[in-house]
Amino acid sequence: MNGKKGSIRIDICQLTPKDVVPEGAKKPISKGLSPRKWLRDVWEFARQDTNRVTFALKVGLACLLVSLLILFRAPYDIFGANIIWSILTVAIMFEYTVGATFNRGFNRAVGSVLAGVFAIVVIQVAMSSGHIAEPYIIGFSIFLIGAVTSFMKLWPSLVQYEYGFRVILFTYCLIIVSGYRMGNPIRTAMDRLYSIAIGALIAVLVNVFICPIWAGEQLHKELVNNFNSLADSLEECVKKYLSDDGSEHPEFSKTVMDNFPDEPAFRKCRATLNSSSKFDSLANSAKWEPPHGRFKHFFYPWAEYVKVGNVLRHCAYEVMALHGCVHSEIQAPYNLRCAFKSEISDATKQAAELLRSLAKDLNNMKWSLQTSLLKHVHVSTERLQHSIDLHSYLFTASQEDNHAKPQLKISRVVSFKNQSGEPECKTMESTTPMAMEVESYHEMMKRQQRKLHSWPSREVDDFEDDENVVSDLIPKMRALESTTALSLATFTSLLIEFVARLDHLVEAAEKLATMARFKQQTAN
Amino acid sequence: MNGKKGSIRIDICQLTPKDVVPEGAKKPISKGLSPRKWLRDVWEFARQDTNRVTFALKVGLACLLVSLLILFRAPYDIFGANIIWSILTVAIMFEYTVGATFNRGFNRAVGSVLAGVFAIVVIQVAMSSGHIAEPYIIGFSIFLIGAVTSFMKLWPSLVQYEYGFRVILFTYCLIIVSGYRMGNPIRTAMDRLYSIAIGALIAVLVNVFICPIWAGEQLHKELVNNFNSLADSLEECVKKYLSDDGSEHPEFSKTVMDNFPDEPAFRKCRATLNSSSKFDSLANSAKWEPPHGRFKHFFYPWAEYVKVGNVLRHCAYEVMALHGCVHSEIQAPYNLRCAFKSEISDATKQAAELLRSLAKDLNNMKWSLQTSLLKHVHVSTERLQHSIDLHSYLFTASQEDNHAKPQLKISRVVSFKNQSGEPECKTMESTTPMAMEVESYHEMMKRQQRKLHSWPSREVDDFEDDENVVSDLIPKMRALESTTALSLATFTSLLIEFVARLDHLVEAAEKLATMARFKQQTAN
Repeated sequence: MNGKKGSIRIDICQLTPKDVVPEGAKKPISKGLSPRKWLRDVWEFARQDTNRVTFALKVGLACLLVSLLILFRAPYDIFGANIIWSILTVAIMFEYTVGATFNRGFNRAVGSVLAGVFAIVVIQVAMSSGHIAEPYIIGFSIFLIGAVTSFMKLWPSLVQYEYGFRVILFTYCLIIVSGYRMGNPIRTAMDRLYSIAIGALIAVLVNVFICPIWAGEQLHKELVNNFNSLADSLEECVKKYLSDDGSEHPEFSKTVMDNFPDEPAFRKCRATLNSSSKFDSLANSAKWEPPHGRFKHFFYPWAEYVKVGNVLRHCAYEVMALHGCVHSEIQAPYNLRCAFKSEISDATKQAAELLRSLAKDLNNMKWSLQTSLLKHVHVSTERLQHSIDLHSYLFTASQEDNHAKPQLKISRVVSFKNQSGEPECKTMESTTPMAMEVESYHEMMKRQQRKLHSWPSREVDDFEDDENVVSDLIPKMRALESTTALSLATFTSLLIEFVARLDHLVEAAEKLATMARFKQQTAN
Repeated sequence: MNGKKGSIRIDICQLTPKDVVPEGAKKPISKGLSPRKWLRDVWEFARQDTNRVTFALKVGLACLLVSLLILFRAPYDIFGANIIWSILTVAIMFEYTVGATFNRGFNRAVGSVLAGVFAIVVIQVAMSSGHIAEPYIIGFSIFLIGAVTSFMKLWPSLVQYEYGFRVILFTYCLIIVSGYRMGNPIRTAMDRLYSIAIGALIAVLVNVFICPIWAGEQLHKELVNNFNSLADSLEECVKKYLSDDGSEHPEFSKTVMDNFPDEPAFRKCRATLNSSSKFDSLANSAKWEPPHGRFKHFFYPWAEYVKVGNVLRHCAYEVMALHGCVHSEIQAPYNLRCAFKSEISDATKQAAELLRSLAKDLNNMKWSLQTSLLKHVHVSTERLQHSIDLHSYLFTASQEDNHAKPQLKISRVVSFKNQSGEPECKTMESTTPMAMEVESYHEMMKRQQRKLHSWPSREVDDFEDDENVVSDLIPKMRALESTTALSLATFTSLLIEFVARLDHLVEAAEKLATMARFKQQTAN
């Protein structure tokens, strides 16, 4: 059904199943076979974010340091074979960011301590209940701990401590079983606890004091990037909508293997939509971190970042819908889109500028109430509304007196523009040949009438046979003509709704700025 | 700015920052303090999905079984203290679904073997290079393995094997260090490998043969649920749009703490939007599973489920946009919405029915080409388009000759309806009093004119002072009036676009049905 050549205006330019790749599986770098290319890819990957190399070297260093405890004779003689637990702890606890390491360390510490306490209690009970009952009590306690911890880690509010429950389970089993078999369980438990503490200490020290990678910093950058990519994708989407005259669409399903390779910002926007879990986990890690760098005070409002991210995502849904319009099956004629080009471009430009300015402010941890920018956005949006109103006769293309109206209206448009006293003359230039454009639009529509009924795109056999609801072709064509024109109304409405949501975004960002005590500025 | 009482029609009913909760943190059950309530909550949580209890009991059983190896004397005498590694393996490897357990087992097995091979090679090299060089070589190799595995696990296509790299790192360190200190590294490595193999075997046997929880089954159910929740949220959203006469909105920011508590389906729809990572991980686990239950043949196309899920999400973006319309700041007047009520309801009903029928087919693993349902959807959508066309004068409410048109048009509508010969008379009934409705709409608009300029909602001081672009109030009001009417056009366009995307969904589902060899049916 894709690439049916009959339909000219109603292009089927949508995400077909073939083009949908799983969101998580984006490969930024194609994997080649030649070692030269492979090395270049690795180099490029490391260069994109040098923190990756830092992290790798830090893990290596932490492992080396903890191994020295065993490679040298002195610490080994003190702690004995239990010292290998410090290696295990480093390997398991070392995470990318400082906050995540602290979080994991907390899980490990609390899990180990709880398991130790349970184990000691159960061993005392088992030992006092006689030699025969002992293994039964131990066996039952293992079953119980396994079942209870596994059930608890499924509980929604405890899911984040999943690792802690795992630690409880295996530490408990290890202590109780080796205590039963090897005697002196408390000595074993304490030795192991010391080893784990040493491993944890090394992991934390290396992670915090050698080129630390802070989750808070990452979260901050991520939010700023999301603002920018939203602005980019808005502009990209609108630009494509206004410049796309329908002539360029190749046979879609064959040429496009990935999602719209000519729309890098759209991909970023979709990444924004799927970033909620990333934000949650970064904020979750960040709240474990001590004040650092630019984030100087205690109880820094990391949760606010998540909230601003959510509102931003709420705005991004509108951009997705705009994007849906661009790739819709039903398209407003190019000429009609051109008629509103300057207003749409202007509103988009202002909105993107506001977003970028918010991003810049957040990035610099300043806050200047964007009064003039907000004003610009609102004014340009009102102008768009106004223009839609003045030309709303274009949306009712099937009225009989249509051809008379354009000439009548043009004068109003021009006088309106003169009233506004706007220095730019692009709008006036584009409105003058409008009568002609509308004319040609109608002609084109008439030419297309025979081809238009290729929509709906899926072939349903004997479509019109048994239910003669829309029996005559002309009303059907009129409906389509009107719907294609209304598609422009949809686009502008979505744009206006996007702008309306920007207010909430500004509000959320302002709340963040207040709670995080950004520097207030009255300029701008 | 919320709850400003001046605006009647333009209600501010949007997601304010306060109401946005992190997506992942939904608590299905409120947590009380009394033990009675707490017990009831736990019981409810277990009852919602009995698999949770099954899983917990299975983990307990696996731990108990592996502990028996140590509690009984015979196996302990054979394997010695290394047997505790089997406990560690069970605790770490046991996952919720069979596929995830296999996947983790694979990671653990390959990781352990690779680490063992590396360790043996390095030990041989170190031992042959003399007593002084030995610790340096070992130390350097530990640093290298730590850095390389940590770097590799950041590589996008290797992220899913993160656990495997962790296993390589700590197994390597453990073998090489304990080999260096305790002698006979190969014996140590082999003993440990046996223990790990025993633990893995027990974990797999318990997981597969006792009430297995298959990732494939979960994925299948999840997809079917997503179809149903999309249908639910579509219907809910449209119902709310058509029934909402603007009178019920309480002061939003104060009363609503969570997201729209009266819209359970919307929450499900948003969960659908965020389900991409869940789909990926389930499909990733499912491909490790052997043929089972209803999924009888090898190489079952689990990846197709992810693709259908993606197309479904693509449809859900439109529902989100529709939902955005419902809670938009700019609302079409109630009367205008009523005018198209029957067409919108009909199209929605048909689309939801198609979705539910697809869900049912998927659930039963049958496939009947939904010709008649698709036809119904297309016919009702065309009728909606048609109706929009016939009443498009309503969208240009500011024209001078508006009041003359309704009467003229009504006759056309009725005659069209008569032509169609449709048995339902609801549409006719609703079109007859339309002239009156349109009349009252205009009156209402005039009454509202003074209040309408409360939009834009964010207060920008001296908004109209320095730029006198829209100096007179009347054109501004006209623009708003037109925009509010066009908001209905947006709603219907989005609905039509949703229906257009359904074609792709049917296509994707059909491809899945073919590849998964669903039973073909010609009925329906």
